Amino acid sequence: METVHQGKQSILFFPQPAIISYASVAGKKEGQGPLAATFDVTSQDTKFGQKTWEKAETQMQKTVMQLALQKADLKESDLDAAFVGDLLNQCVGSSFSMRNLEIPTFGLYGACSTMAEGLLLSGMAISGGFCRKTINLSSSHFASSERQYRFPLGYGGQRTPTAQWTVTGAGAIILGTEGDGPFLKSATIGTIVDCGIKDANNMGAAMAPAAYQTLSAHFNDLGLTPNDYDLIVTGDLGVLGAQIVRDLFLMDGIDIGAHYNDCGVMIFDPQGQDVHCGGSGCGCSASVLCGHLLGQMRRHELKRLLFCGTGALLSPLSTQQGESIPAVCHAVSICTERS
Amino acid sequence: METVHQGKQSILFFPQPAIISYASVAGKKEGQGPLAATFDVTSQDTKFGQKTWEKAETQMQKTVMQLALQKADLKESDLDAAFVGDLLNQCVGSSFSMRNLEIPTFGLYGACSTMAEGLLLSGMAISGGFCRKTINLSSSHFASSERQYRFPLGYGGQRTPTAQWTVTGAGAIILGTEGDGPFLKSATIGTIVDCGIKDANNMGAAMAPAAYQTLSAHFNDLGLTPNDYDLIVTGDLGVLGAQIVRDLFLMDGIDIGAHYNDCGVMIFDPQGQDVHCGGSGCGCSASVLCGHLLGQMRRHELKRLLFCGTGALLSPLSTQQGESIPAVCHAVSICTERS
Repeated sequence: METVHQGKQSILFFPQPAIISYASVAGKKEGQGPLAATFDVTSQDTKFGQKTWEKAETQMQKTVMQLALQKADLKESDLDAAFVGDLLNQCVGSSFSMRNLEIPTFGLYGACSTMAEGLLLSGMAISGGFCRKTINLSSSHFASSERQYRFPLGYGGQRTPTAQWTVTGAGAIILGTEGDGPFLKSATIGTIVDCGIKDANNMGAAMAPAAYQTLSAHFNDLGLTPNDYDLIVTGDLGVLGAQIVRDLFLMDGIDIGAHYNDCGVMIFDPQGQDVHCGGSGCGCSASVLCGHLLGQMRRHELKRLLFCGTGALLSPLSTQQGESIPAVCHAVSICTERS
Repeated sequence: METVHQGKQSILFFPQPAIISYASVAGKKEGQGPLAATFDVTSQDTKFGQKTWEKAETQMQKTVMQLALQKADLKESDLDAAFVGDLLNQCVGSSFSMRNLEIPTFGLYGACSTMAEGLLLSGMAISGGFCRKTINLSSSHFASSERQYRFPLGYGGQRTPTAQWTVTGAGAIILGTEGDGPFLKSATIGTIVDCGIKDANNMGAAMAPAAYQTLSAHFNDLGLTPNDYDLIVTGDLGVLGAQIVRDLFLMDGIDIGAHYNDCGVMIFDPQGQDVHCGGSGCGCSASVLCGHLLGQMRRHELKRLLFCGTGALLSPLSTQQGESIPAVCHAVSICTERS
């Protein structure tokens, strides 16, 4: 058996899975931001027609799944597997969206790295010949996250300067063995890194070292440099976390600045939208990838993308028990051409 | 590319990954049950030397991982990936056990099906050539689950007749490309099934239809019958859930009774241990598989096992919002001989 494991934590996809469809949905605030035009659907109703924010999250997942299926003229029974996850306790956003659909389903927990984690696992399932078509789904909702992780919204708590704003959004990607691309080329599986940050309102700083570790491993394992990508994008480090990643690479003598951006920085207008350090949540990188980024790739404005999902693996209870914040970053290389 | 997808939701592993090591740990009550002698470690201290039950769960995972590595004379850097999960909100038991170990890590959420889900994904990663050695880890703790899902223990709530007792335990399995076995032969990926059960104290009834669906798909997809296995074991349906699975198959004219058992039934003494319907929790099927079952396979007392992890994908919040309980069951076929 040929191993396609590379170096410390990377893999090559061969054959390379094709992205055959994708869709995104976003909330009202995201629909007022700079990427507004790139989402398939933006809703003015934060409950998406449902009774609760948690059910709204399930509804967003159902919407992007149906849109992604429709765009490729597929039905649910064409999918050999789904890779799904969200931020809610016990990932109920995802379990309820997949309920009674008869799609073989893997539940994931990678916090805001979920879309990247799902693409990585899904890519292995396709490339290894275990599945012919898979769907990857991920979501987050500002209001369901606020009440679970922080305070009830009615409490009106003051947000700290390093806080990020959980994106209301979802993304879906359908992978297959055949298609015109873009294609998954390689990936780097993240390790869990904890540098001791204890401030749950500074997740950018908590996640930045994980992003730096995974990116460094990606370059080392595969013999690449930042110049091999048109864009390296992290999930949702926000303004501060993204700056820390730039600084950590500068200490290695590497300037990733020209090639680097962050979905949490891109999705909101830092001047006009009062989001402090930017966006976060599983739905942030999922909706930016499944809207703006894959749209650019389809138009060949972007040819070589390194998509790095970043997740802060804390819980309110771990914070209450005095723990610091472990973080993970999974990276997936996506290219418009098979190579 | 050859597809090894079979029928509706099954796959064949080829080459077949080998189980090269495994280990289990259990708590005090599990150490008083019928499988007491099969665990590597049983602790009289429900906190496993830690300050909180949640940290105890992390400690159990660390213990089984080290034991499994030691038994195979391996170190952490020999592992290409870890597949980990537990029941705690945001799966913090697992994230903290993997923190700063430099092992590429996938976080899973499959509730009590986690060990089976991990074996399935891990098997694909090995069989597809993406990883050479992987570890699968899962755990649960009675006290951390009680306070998260039900009542604080000090409240002394009365348990209902259909309730199950969350197992304090953990299991670890190391898979590799080479070894004397047992081997993973095939698997069936579960779909999410919800038949409308709303009683969070009757998870056996909520999960039984998912187990029946996955088992039926396994037999249909692969052209097998219950007679092709020496033992079919579900994760933790308990006494009532296991009886429902037997009854559902009897309605199809199939008697699985002679070949069928349930980890939740096996781990406690139903007469002497006051656990009502039996054991549950990610650690239930994980510790029974990584103790009793793989022990029997190593001694060739058991040659063909179908291990079916079952998970109830509810959250306390979904129950409060009036939702019924979605469930999943992932099945992995494990055999002593490569075929």
